[in-house]
Amino acid sequence: MRATIIHGAGDIRVEEVPDPQLREPTDAVVRVVRACICGSDLWPYRSMPVSEQGERIGHEFLGVVEDVGSQVSGIKRGDLVVAPFVWADNTCDFCREGLQTSCRHGGMWARDGIDGGQGEAVRVPQAQGTLVRLPAAEDSALLSSLLSLSDVFPTGYHCAHTAGVNHRTSVTVIGDGAVGLSAVLSAKRLGAERIILMGHHKARTDLGFEFGATDVVAERGKEGIEKVRELTRGDGTHRVLECVGLKEAIETAFAVVRDGGVVSRVGAPQYSDVPMDFGVFLRNVTLTGGVAPARAYIDELLPDVLEGKIQPGLVFDRTVSLDEVSSGYRAMASRTALKVLVQP
Amino acid sequence: MRATIIHGAGDIRVEEVPDPQLREPTDAVVRVVRACICGSDLWPYRSMPVSEQGERIGHEFLGVVEDVGSQVSGIKRGDLVVAPFVWADNTCDFCREGLQTSCRHGGMWARDGIDGGQGEAVRVPQAQGTLVRLPAAEDSALLSSLLSLSDVFPTGYHCAHTAGVNHRTSVTVIGDGAVGLSAVLSAKRLGAERIILMGHHKARTDLGFEFGATDVVAERGKEGIEKVRELTRGDGTHRVLECVGLKEAIETAFAVVRDGGVVSRVGAPQYSDVPMDFGVFLRNVTLTGGVAPARAYIDELLPDVLEGKIQPGLVFDRTVSLDEVSSGYRAMASRTALKVLVQP
Repeated sequence: MRATIIHGAGDIRVEEVPDPQLREPTDAVVRVVRACICGSDLWPYRSMPVSEQGERIGHEFLGVVEDVGSQVSGIKRGDLVVAPFVWADNTCDFCREGLQTSCRHGGMWARDGIDGGQGEAVRVPQAQGTLVRLPAAEDSALLSSLLSLSDVFPTGYHCAHTAGVNHRTSVTVIGDGAVGLSAVLSAKRLGAERIILMGHHKARTDLGFEFGATDVVAERGKEGIEKVRELTRGDGTHRVLECVGLKEAIETAFAVVRDGGVVSRVGAPQYSDVPMDFGVFLRNVTLTGGVAPARAYIDELLPDVLEGKIQPGLVFDRTVSLDEVSSGYRAMASRTALKVLVQP
Repeated sequence: MRATIIHGAGDIRVEEVPDPQLREPTDAVVRVVRACICGSDLWPYRSMPVSEQGERIGHEFLGVVEDVGSQVSGIKRGDLVVAPFVWADNTCDFCREGLQTSCRHGGMWARDGIDGGQGEAVRVPQAQGTLVRLPAAEDSALLSSLLSLSDVFPTGYHCAHTAGVNHRTSVTVIGDGAVGLSAVLSAKRLGAERIILMGHHKARTDLGFEFGATDVVAERGKEGIEKVRELTRGDGTHRVLECVGLKEAIETAFAVVRDGGVVSRVGAPQYSDVPMDFGVFLRNVTLTGGVAPARAYIDELLPDVLEGKIQPGLVFDRTVSLDEVSSGYRAMASRTALKVLVQP
């Protein structure tokens, strides 16, 4: 079969790889119907050293089950399923607490001999715990939104959920990427009435308005901070959802959060230290968030997607074939596409 | 009257100052019956540049009301009252949310012309919001524990409360100072069944056991981290209460917290950046806490103190007169006293 291999910064290829097969009785094999490119895939796309052998890449996909191991129940050949971006047994103590990203028997896609999602098929470890059956057809009009349950939408939701967003909290979302927009949609779903979106790409912030943003602040840095303060009587907002991962973004987050408020971060941090000094201490600001246990949220979010109440799949604004995946990376890296769907 | 003045590192004097008088109709004047020295008073005691004029110091006291302004109700001459370590109107939006440390009309003792607590009397701004009447006599045996409501006990309680300690959470407390021991007592009060105290002063950790600690880890640094992990199947504890404020302490906190857990800090941070890197992000660890809004907790904690259910005042292990206050600082700075009570 064919799968996407990254050989270094800017070097994405589609190559022949062995067909996936069951290895463990807890495995399944899934034929990929839709995959996509994540903002976090752009980190290696921008910085990975050259590698002759290359590495599999991609961690978001939905598809049709082709085979299941003897210990897998609840999922059968022919089922349409979505995979969260971390695989997990969904039975250990961490999983039962809703922290499948720390599963004692789980792991990441495209690491340590596990397949990546941007290919024609995937061997899925811990299939019973990992995969979620979707009551939809392979050609459903909902496929984009269903695929978003794999990562981008639950990541935005994790941000809003861990921040404790509700109808009494004002919210600032930092970043108008696909995760930031998902965070806007999530904050709206959790009842927030005031959602300030910091972002400066008009097409994206327009989708932010559609998702529930009440204000857009296009200014960045100090000017952006001033603008959010102006909009909030000088106080900042109760909750700040940091969906970028850069140092400047987390600094902005602490500058626009209200005393006693919460900053939640889901953008993979490209920094090692967080500026939570004595001033932040005096203001009783909390920092929460982290890598999203998508699996923990799918059961809650799926009905709204199936009923069409929310359309998180609107973040996909381009579709490429597997052969064109390299152009998808280019489009996302150059910000000419918001989020790219891959149709093998 | 006489009050404590700090003239620089190591230079604590008791000097004549003007008697406090009502200035605003919202003021009260309180004759101090008991004050005390805080671990945070040791920061200027160790590092303040020489000052000819000097500065008032002290922010914990209880006493008897001598006079009240025309707009103060609920408190009258002769009442025994305790003052939280930040004064506040207790009516603004922040105060109503329980964040009196961010009061829109409040402030700190011994700053900006406001009296300090280590003296014979204090002018109390926003007296109606600040002071809490104590149904006890001036010579009550409970005075030490009642005084602890001013700062040290609610600070430990804020740490445990913001961390979300309950009967399902295991807890590590970092630091066997008066705040750390108060955090142990607080964690116990909130139902924690497993409380690991990291500290190496036997007299203090013995009091920690009395307050509810189940284990003491005397080792520091890497060895201490290893020990806590050994005690917790390698996982760390659900909650970590950081009651020191030094960089090493906050680093230890992240090393001994379980995935998905919460670190709460109430030790005034002597560092500007917190090591919450990609590894902490992957583990979904939250950092909360901050300066404690003591006022928010006094109503809740007072009944337990009055009924003798808890004795937070056991952290006081030395009493000095006002004239001896300098020796009290020396004793705390050299760690020969845990916490020093001042009896003017």
